[in-house]
Amino acid sequence: MATPLFHADLTVHTQSHDYPIVITENAIAENSSMASQVAPYITGRQVLIVTNETVAPLYLKALQEELEAQFTVQVCVLPDGEQYKNQSSINQIYDVLMAVHFNRDVTLIALGGGVIGDMTGFAAASFMRGVNFIQIPTTLLSQVDSSVGGKTGINHPQGKNMIGAFWQPQMVLADMSTLKTLPARELSAGLAEVIKYALIMDAEFLTWLEHNLPAMMALDLAVLGEAVKRCCQYKADVVAQDERESGVRALLNFGHTFGHVIETHEGYGSWLHGEAVAAGMVQAAELSQKIGWLTSDEVACVKRILSLANLPITPPPIEVQTALDLMGHDKKVKHGQIRLILLKSLGEAVLTNDFDPHLLTDVLATHAP
Amino acid sequence: MATPLFHADLTVHTQSHDYPIVITENAIAENSSMASQVAPYITGRQVLIVTNETVAPLYLKALQEELEAQFTVQVCVLPDGEQYKNQSSINQIYDVLMAVHFNRDVTLIALGGGVIGDMTGFAAASFMRGVNFIQIPTTLLSQVDSSVGGKTGINHPQGKNMIGAFWQPQMVLADMSTLKTLPARELSAGLAEVIKYALIMDAEFLTWLEHNLPAMMALDLAVLGEAVKRCCQYKADVVAQDERESGVRALLNFGHTFGHVIETHEGYGSWLHGEAVAAGMVQAAELSQKIGWLTSDEVACVKRILSLANLPITPPPIEVQTALDLMGHDKKVKHGQIRLILLKSLGEAVLTNDFDPHLLTDVLATHAP
Repeated sequence: MATPLFHADLTVHTQSHDYPIVITENAIAENSSMASQVAPYITGRQVLIVTNETVAPLYLKALQEELEAQFTVQVCVLPDGEQYKNQSSINQIYDVLMAVHFNRDVTLIALGGGVIGDMTGFAAASFMRGVNFIQIPTTLLSQVDSSVGGKTGINHPQGKNMIGAFWQPQMVLADMSTLKTLPARELSAGLAEVIKYALIMDAEFLTWLEHNLPAMMALDLAVLGEAVKRCCQYKADVVAQDERESGVRALLNFGHTFGHVIETHEGYGSWLHGEAVAAGMVQAAELSQKIGWLTSDEVACVKRILSLANLPITPPPIEVQTALDLMGHDKKVKHGQIRLILLKSLGEAVLTNDFDPHLLTDVLATHAP
Repeated sequence: MATPLFHADLTVHTQSHDYPIVITENAIAENSSMASQVAPYITGRQVLIVTNETVAPLYLKALQEELEAQFTVQVCVLPDGEQYKNQSSINQIYDVLMAVHFNRDVTLIALGGGVIGDMTGFAAASFMRGVNFIQIPTTLLSQVDSSVGGKTGINHPQGKNMIGAFWQPQMVLADMSTLKTLPARELSAGLAEVIKYALIMDAEFLTWLEHNLPAMMALDLAVLGEAVKRCCQYKADVVAQDERESGVRALLNFGHTFGHVIETHEGYGSWLHGEAVAAGMVQAAELSQKIGWLTSDEVACVKRILSLANLPITPPPIEVQTALDLMGHDKKVKHGQIRLILLKSLGEAVLTNDFDPHLLTDVLATHAP
């Protein structure tokens, strides 16, 4: 077993319980110590590993075999992709749990990216009114964002993440080594969320990123580990303050209202979530500029950094009214008014509906067909 | 508006929030005060009333029209019956919520019996990761049991209430007048749960019931109101101690493990839940007698009181192995062992796996084909 090159432990404080995020290297490998890292957080004897057809051939066998020494292990392999983040996949998880007579003692393990993590978490939240689960995120996006904080759920045909629960995992194990098998396009999608943290809360981190993005793109795992650690710490701080998103947590959705429009309009799976968020952050920055909060140089900086990470900075053509209608489904809509997360400056975000609606229309019109 | 003949207010204390149970008479009627009673617990402007085809013609119009003076009101009318307590019905609720662009501000109102309450609660727990809901139970069973305490959910084809969440309502409004339109068979089914409270925690209440059951069967609303108040107080006390059923709350499932076998085996909807619980309580009492905790006179007393309420005291014929297999899915199974709620004496229940399995087999064999 290789000695870990990067290792960091963080703790997330939530109302239901505290739990660790372990960020490491080489925990997932032949003869790895992954099972030994998650085993202390499995309270019963029953384990269901939920993964997908892409991740299973890479990491499932080693994890499963190691855990079988201590636990009764079952596996549910789902198809890969955002378009399968639906009730049908959740039903497949329930069906396995029922077929093997698992009960409230079971621990579900999500082995995969954000889609697997969100679905496994929601299945855990709703099976027998709630059982334990553990996150093993294998994509950069899920490591820095979706695996931490307990947001779980699935898409509704009319809107992303409309069905779900707040349900916290027992632990999160993020192994940087898994990024070696991640397609470049998905690495970039994850970097969108990393850049998001810098844009909304830390201008210094933005400078750090501009310097270090090339190393991250070249899979320097220590640099990636450092970035993941910083993002997870931001996320943990925000979740501890506002677990159920009644305040500051909403800021983490920067770029997401615009991004969800892109994802819903183009059909789940054609744009990666991180790609849609990248283009969405540009639109949010453009609106911030129209309001007078950002300079054109600062908007150019946002675009430059996203481009460094090979991310799109222009949304696909969408009619203004279509975009507005899709925004109307957003969870942040309050009393019928669209609220958006915008930038007061680079490194400072605000959730607001205090803007001239025509400015929003202008931004959307720029990108209409 | 008639002056209420019976009125009681209780409070349920839970981790998320405290909420009232209002037990009253004549709140639901032409020009009623129902809307005025629930309106203070509706925080946003959006209301979705979920009801079924049986209850809608009786109480929907008055409630809807009154609420429309203050709120944007939408309605979802589901088919009536335990066989519709499934994902498809939940999806119908989601679809209405999405079609009318409702958001996190929405309050769902469950107008109906336990099935409507459980489904509406689960839809509220999972729509946008959790929105508010209010229970207006219109059956005796839901008034004394399922509307209080936050257990929500649906059935899985292989097991009852397997999918769900703990999600507390904002208030519960129980109007005794609704019992006037309840079929006699369903009134009896509700009395099964009333008798359950007496059997597990209050021998004096059992005596009270033996005296008052005839008046309850004759729809004396004041006597029914007194019984509902006592049951809701028991339930509120138990929920305050053990919201997530890690201990004492499990005792409320007396008769339910045997009862769920009947319901699952016969197909949801053919036996009413309360009827299955009644026959299940007899089986639990019979096992308690075999262990040596109850006398044959006490088992006869259980049967006599259930018969007074026109309830079945014998389960349908089910093979022993089939019953054991169905019990294996029960949420109370721990480390593969069947745990049951049994009676130490009339008025005192215990959750235990400390019994000779052959005694359980003997009881099941008594009722096998």
